[in-house]
Amino acid sequence: MSKQVPTLDERPPDVGELTPPDRTLMGPGPSDVHPRVLRAMSTPLVGHLDPSFVEIMDEVQELLRYAFRTDNRWTIPVSGTGSASMEAAIGNLVEPGDTMLVPTNGYFGGRMRSMAERAGGDVVEVDAPWGEPLDPVDVERAFDEHQPDVFGFVHAETSTGVRQPDVSELTDIAHAHDAYVIADCVTSLGGVEMRVDEWGVDVAYSAPQKCLSCPPGASPLTLNDRAMEKVLSREERARSWYLDLSLLEGYWGDERAYHHTAPITNVYALREALRLVAEEGIEDRWDRHRAVAGELKAGLRDLGLEMNAAEECWLPSLNAVRVPDGVDDAAVIDRLLDEYDLEIASGLGDLEGEIWRIGCMGRSARRENVEYLLAALADALAEQGYEA
Amino acid sequence: MSKQVPTLDERPPDVGELTPPDRTLMGPGPSDVHPRVLRAMSTPLVGHLDPSFVEIMDEVQELLRYAFRTDNRWTIPVSGTGSASMEAAIGNLVEPGDTMLVPTNGYFGGRMRSMAERAGGDVVEVDAPWGEPLDPVDVERAFDEHQPDVFGFVHAETSTGVRQPDVSELTDIAHAHDAYVIADCVTSLGGVEMRVDEWGVDVAYSAPQKCLSCPPGASPLTLNDRAMEKVLSREERARSWYLDLSLLEGYWGDERAYHHTAPITNVYALREALRLVAEEGIEDRWDRHRAVAGELKAGLRDLGLEMNAAEECWLPSLNAVRVPDGVDDAAVIDRLLDEYDLEIASGLGDLEGEIWRIGCMGRSARRENVEYLLAALADALAEQGYEA
Repeated sequence: MSKQVPTLDERPPDVGELTPPDRTLMGPGPSDVHPRVLRAMSTPLVGHLDPSFVEIMDEVQELLRYAFRTDNRWTIPVSGTGSASMEAAIGNLVEPGDTMLVPTNGYFGGRMRSMAERAGGDVVEVDAPWGEPLDPVDVERAFDEHQPDVFGFVHAETSTGVRQPDVSELTDIAHAHDAYVIADCVTSLGGVEMRVDEWGVDVAYSAPQKCLSCPPGASPLTLNDRAMEKVLSREERARSWYLDLSLLEGYWGDERAYHHTAPITNVYALREALRLVAEEGIEDRWDRHRAVAGELKAGLRDLGLEMNAAEECWLPSLNAVRVPDGVDDAAVIDRLLDEYDLEIASGLGDLEGEIWRIGCMGRSARRENVEYLLAALADALAEQGYEA
Repeated sequence: MSKQVPTLDERPPDVGELTPPDRTLMGPGPSDVHPRVLRAMSTPLVGHLDPSFVEIMDEVQELLRYAFRTDNRWTIPVSGTGSASMEAAIGNLVEPGDTMLVPTNGYFGGRMRSMAERAGGDVVEVDAPWGEPLDPVDVERAFDEHQPDVFGFVHAETSTGVRQPDVSELTDIAHAHDAYVIADCVTSLGGVEMRVDEWGVDVAYSAPQKCLSCPPGASPLTLNDRAMEKVLSREERARSWYLDLSLLEGYWGDERAYHHTAPITNVYALREALRLVAEEGIEDRWDRHRAVAGELKAGLRDLGLEMNAAEECWLPSLNAVRVPDGVDDAAVIDRLLDEYDLEIASGLGDLEGEIWRIGCMGRSARRENVEYLLAALADALAEQGYEA
């Protein structure tokens, strides 16, 4: 076989200074990052096995437990973005031959399906329309019909702005059927009430760039002992070496043995972001998100806009707003970005073109951001000829 | 099933300011990070689909191609630490039923084995002792015997301080057998000569915290078209959703479609670290590593110490030094850390207790670091009663 002929331009690329625009982030994440967290990221590194880093790991674990409202020993940041902690949860819990029950009421249920299938699992579904929560009656029926081993649900659906109420009801059903519950808390952790232990959630994962307002790269995961026992007694190893929790246990557990090089700076950042959570107090933080997002919601209504989700499943951290008839959703998004340096997002999947997604997370859940967004949105709508 | 009883301490953890010690990093990575890279990490974020971020992605890809000495279109940072780019390479190239040939001459060949097995591959080995490179004769023999589909080798073995010479010889053998070559360049990219295109490497992966002197979290990977065609024509999907290159292609390719949230800040940092590579010039950078590590090596010899690897496979970025008889390797490491805030590492696996591993990578490949290390090491050896 002939070798590739080198045709390389030998000159180094001429890439200038890093000068990204100064955005206000009100989309589905990342959210605005607190200056203290940015500063933490410029801290010089220690080694990933340095005794001082082991202390930092302990602190991050303790702070994560506080945010998750759990005593779970197995509470760690996974070395990757939110989808990595998601796959760590699903890829370790689901063994070949296991059946996993996943929801169809949003984008991330579909991702659960794909991850469970790749893990060697069989997947069954519990249905609800995009924009609505799961009905416990349907979940019960799906359990009776399929007897799944693992049940995944999305506590805070970033694609639809729906909060799943009645978490305890769902976990009760699952546990009555001896199943394990995995909760997607990507858009709730640190912003919307989630009580892992009290609500009987076996495994929960999240991402840092949402309500924790931390740059992505190290993602929260917690498993109770029951779930970890399933992981540690697997017959076949997890299909990812990188995300194998039985190996990660060696690094984050008592042994502190080398597995991979942790993303040290991201752990520094997460620590600082979680310190801010602890300083504010987790319940006060939930209250702030509800209050500030409540102002946002009221302002959107004053503009004549309609929320997509029903009031009882409103997700303060992610507000799905219906695009009014005759308004070009993409043109509004572009105008906000171009004229106001303000990011919001369009709908995904079944809701593409029908909603805007306006985040109100962490440091972005501030009155400054909300007032700015409402003013900018009013202008962008007027520019489209829309009248409230 | 009874619910867990909540026993949570409701008080937030009291975790103080982040004040890690000020280390000099001369271990196997991370290396010292350049202040410009640290500063880039404190840059406020834009969204991962922001048009300005798409430009940054293009720039990072261009800079990575320069560092890898490749024109490969599929040159990206993987959203995780080096083991993630390693698993992205192996987990996508190796399909169930494929045979992968891996080396046994260091720690990372063993990791290749585990990843290939988890990908559903059969694994065969080509042997060489820890501390020696592969012999092309043995590789040829293994190819004739096993006809592997994929061949992995470690260009720069972090566990043994061995550089694999004759890369073209190995890739010629593999290509004559229609196999794909994956090169582990974790400890060579940006510090030790590696010419992906000229040397016929199909897939190469690396990590940022070694010779690029960038915090870990976004890890270089490059595939040529031939390798990417294998990935895109897999019969069965890759077993990891997070690391599935056919999905990542949608984000890093022309489409720029959402797959997962990229670790934005890590990409910023990698961009700045790669700009420093471009400013220095890749060949000058290789020369600097050889020159500065040469000073280190001479200084170690003056102390009466012996290098573990033979001169022709010396790896400037990772210097494996034999622990002299009667010296406690761990006590020396501890003293350097405690008294000098200086990190070096012990041996792994077959070389545990027999060597120290002294990195000389990126910003740590400076005369300041080398002189400091030699002085500190002389003191720590003297403290052990050792005389040159």
